[in-house]
Amino acid sequence: MRQFINAKDMLVTQAIDGTLRTAGGNLARLDGYPHIKVVVRNDWNRSKVALVSGGGSGHEPSHAGFVGRGMLTAAVCGDVFASPSVDAVLAGILAVTGQAGCLLIVKNYTGDRLNFGLAAERARAFGLVVNMVVVDDDVALPNLPRARGVAGTLFVHKVAGALAEAGASLEMVTRAAQQVIEGVVSIGMSLDTCTVPGSAKEDRIPDGKAELGLGIHGEAGVEQVDFKGAHQAIEMMVDRLVPTIEPGPHVALLNNLGSATLLEMSVLAEELLGSKLGSQITHLVGPASMMTSLDMHGFSISLLPLNDEVLANLETEVAPHAWPGCHKISDVAVLPLPDGLTPIQPMPSKNAKAEKLIRRCCEILVAAEGDLNVLDAKSGDGDTGSTLATASRALIKALDRLPLADWTQLYRAVGLELSQTMGGSSGVLLAIFFTAAGDASASGHDAVTALKSGLMRIQQVGGASLGDRTMIDALAPALEALPDGLAAAAAAARKGADQTANITRAKAGRASYVSASHLAGHNDPGAEAVARLFEELFQTIDALR
Amino acid sequence: MRQFINAKDMLVTQAIDGTLRTAGGNLARLDGYPHIKVVVRNDWNRSKVALVSGGGSGHEPSHAGFVGRGMLTAAVCGDVFASPSVDAVLAGILAVTGQAGCLLIVKNYTGDRLNFGLAAERARAFGLVVNMVVVDDDVALPNLPRARGVAGTLFVHKVAGALAEAGASLEMVTRAAQQVIEGVVSIGMSLDTCTVPGSAKEDRIPDGKAELGLGIHGEAGVEQVDFKGAHQAIEMMVDRLVPTIEPGPHVALLNNLGSATLLEMSVLAEELLGSKLGSQITHLVGPASMMTSLDMHGFSISLLPLNDEVLANLETEVAPHAWPGCHKISDVAVLPLPDGLTPIQPMPSKNAKAEKLIRRCCEILVAAEGDLNVLDAKSGDGDTGSTLATASRALIKALDRLPLADWTQLYRAVGLELSQTMGGSSGVLLAIFFTAAGDASASGHDAVTALKSGLMRIQQVGGASLGDRTMIDALAPALEALPDGLAAAAAAARKGADQTANITRAKAGRASYVSASHLAGHNDPGAEAVARLFEELFQTIDALR
Repeated sequence: MRQFINAKDMLVTQAIDGTLRTAGGNLARLDGYPHIKVVVRNDWNRSKVALVSGGGSGHEPSHAGFVGRGMLTAAVCGDVFASPSVDAVLAGILAVTGQAGCLLIVKNYTGDRLNFGLAAERARAFGLVVNMVVVDDDVALPNLPRARGVAGTLFVHKVAGALAEAGASLEMVTRAAQQVIEGVVSIGMSLDTCTVPGSAKEDRIPDGKAELGLGIHGEAGVEQVDFKGAHQAIEMMVDRLVPTIEPGPHVALLNNLGSATLLEMSVLAEELLGSKLGSQITHLVGPASMMTSLDMHGFSISLLPLNDEVLANLETEVAPHAWPGCHKISDVAVLPLPDGLTPIQPMPSKNAKAEKLIRRCCEILVAAEGDLNVLDAKSGDGDTGSTLATASRALIKALDRLPLADWTQLYRAVGLELSQTMGGSSGVLLAIFFTAAGDASASGHDAVTALKSGLMRIQQVGGASLGDRTMIDALAPALEALPDGLAAAAAAARKGADQTANITRAKAGRASYVSASHLAGHNDPGAEAVARLFEELFQTIDALR
Repeated sequence: MRQFINAKDMLVTQAIDGTLRTAGGNLARLDGYPHIKVVVRNDWNRSKVALVSGGGSGHEPSHAGFVGRGMLTAAVCGDVFASPSVDAVLAGILAVTGQAGCLLIVKNYTGDRLNFGLAAERARAFGLVVNMVVVDDDVALPNLPRARGVAGTLFVHKVAGALAEAGASLEMVTRAAQQVIEGVVSIGMSLDTCTVPGSAKEDRIPDGKAELGLGIHGEAGVEQVDFKGAHQAIEMMVDRLVPTIEPGPHVALLNNLGSATLLEMSVLAEELLGSKLGSQITHLVGPASMMTSLDMHGFSISLLPLNDEVLANLETEVAPHAWPGCHKISDVAVLPLPDGLTPIQPMPSKNAKAEKLIRRCCEILVAAEGDLNVLDAKSGDGDTGSTLATASRALIKALDRLPLADWTQLYRAVGLELSQTMGGSSGVLLAIFFTAAGDASASGHDAVTALKSGLMRIQQVGGASLGDRTMIDALAPALEALPDGLAAAAAAARKGADQTANITRAKAGRASYVSASHLAGHNDPGAEAVARLFEELFQTIDALR
């Protein structure tokens, strides 16, 4: 078994009970398990026309999912792909039908027609007024005398539901349902068959093929066609649909037959609306799973001619959440990109000390390239040195255009340069570090506080803390000691960097995926880079003054 | 390719445009394709706190599907399973953030943290107030320092969304989001991996196994476990969840990871609510697809501790249809079966003529058993004669309990007997025939009119018409001629039955699946039975008087 079910014989009853428990108290069922599986509105007083539908299970959310105010009054559920019994249908009719009468909405399958038909006869013997309509929307075979009923049935549920809810007579509801049935056409396509619980899956559709014109019970499609993607699939289906409809506006219903992803369904919607039928489709229901065939990887398109009355009935609000609503097709609303994406280059300015400091920092990191790469090879892909060196070389070249005389602007500009020239996570983190320092500086904080603010932010975004074997292990103590001078900062950075050699369980970054034995005895390359930076800066500090 | 998509590089942009066109005009996007894919509310005036989320695509309806009043203000969409760029996130923030500020809701993946983090930094440089929270609800690895963010993120979207919509301050919205993040736990299970567009599907999970504790990007689960059905699956997951939560009421979120059927999801809901966690789950969101992993055949459970404030924020109405609502768990409401399912046995009564007529009809059909079987073997499974004979023998035995003196009751009683003793479609159709005749008789119609009424009904329910090679081809002309006497009726029935031998394209019943060459020259067995009935009755009519 590769399905989230239990014994097959309790599949449908368990699913119905699960549905009832999670429906917010709006649904009830009749006390007829296991043979009589009827879901009814729990807020029904028989004062209006009752709508009863149903059929085999395996088409969820049809039919129980559409029971509720504004749609069905009762759903009679058979076992998977099996028509419910006459007794079950009769129970459903008797449970919900009052003086206003009842309309049975039946899909055109022999079993359903007969069982609903006989149940209607029996109900009439009790003096109830019961009408029955049969939905035959499938146009897969153009000349089939008795087309199948598929997802177009939802239009019948919705239109009849709106009228019944509004208090229309059985005659009016029946006539409207019949008009929908006369107008609606559907066709389906699938890339795979469905998995019927308890049966082996039929591997019928080879790769590169699709079945066109299939029903909702796993039966083979009318033909296997070459499949070349969503665009061509929609084109083929539209070619079948076009000859079956009249000119004028239509509402389309885009139904997921089971396991097409929502990404695929949205692409199909886009293709359908862009097809040669697109100009005739003014409204859409879906894309959504409405009449499924278990887990079939397919979809169906249904079309219904629109007039004001039909549209009004499709647009009323209903209780069942499974009804996705009927929406007017709109153009794609495109808003201009906001200003600010292209960062304003700061005005360059001169400051010999700042220039020397940055140049020296960059030179130190360029000189450490080889050593840092070797260290990184112990725990990563051996490129920490090169990543820092490349960014440093680029920064040296950018010195002329940096706002060196304004520390707030300088921090931000360095952050921007690093985000553009330094790849990987470290580039982003250092960009965050300097940008945040710039913000703090703009608020009037001194250099140490500004840099600490940057540190805090990369800890928050990167998720690493002290002791996690990252550059923070050197940077945090160095900034802490910096008010005591560069010597103290350098010593603290070195101590912190060397301690990373003892941290064999990295909690962040790539090293967190490396085994302890590979890490032991080697400093973290990021922490080592920070330590080298402070040490070398301290040793050459006089040259900078 | 076995997916309804086109070129991979246009997959996400096409899907987004499809979503926008079918969203009823409520959504817009920024003009940044293909790199900047940002969906925003089309009804947003920046007067309230903006909520921006996003991440890789492939998790639909997350995140674009949750943009709208009461939930997200903008969704920043990356390519499939790939974090959006810093520029894309920044564009989203800048497009929707006003004086009230902006909260970024980020799932705990390095790429998302860094890109959203740097974008936040850049936005702050423009003077915007931007907060960021990181969701880490996955409890698959109990001691993982940085748990992944999965479907529990929806709780954050909803609670923060309700507060922001109500006009709460950024500080309040952020604090509430953080509280949800601290409380929410999630775990997932799957029976199969997902199909990443453009990549071969990894066949990682053998039959009989499931992966427990998986993320939403197709990465392997924490462990492969034996899979023995829905009950045991829920039990295993509940065992992982229980140690991570406190006592007290919780809301559960039951998320379809992609291609579990709705039938399976309802079974899982039923099992979850019946598990040892059931008494702690007072409300449920779903089951629904909310945070998917493309077409993964799996699901996840998220739990959030409930208090009045959280519940109120979860229960507000929102615009995005993808949010399935938060419903109070209810008991399964069970209504008694209606009266009338067990048909009231009519009071037996005597009528020698009626008894003789019925007995004679039955004897005729019993005698024809062999001939009719032979005929049926040409087009079906060769049992029409036996089916009719069996029912006839049963009816003879039932004569003592039939209401022979009351034709209305008699028609109905014969219909009931046939529905109980005669298998297959023909049993149901004859039951409908006699029950409808009973109704007509009850309305005061004569025998011929009553029988015609039955004929009309079986045509409607069965869908067959004159000329479709069914028993109707004999029955209809016979009833038409009956007012002229039994001789005329018998002749008409014979003529009609014999004509069926020329109908080689059956439109109804089993014969519609049989090739013309098998049908030519042979009468339809049902029509032949009707002809024999009338002919033999005519020949023995005197014996009945």
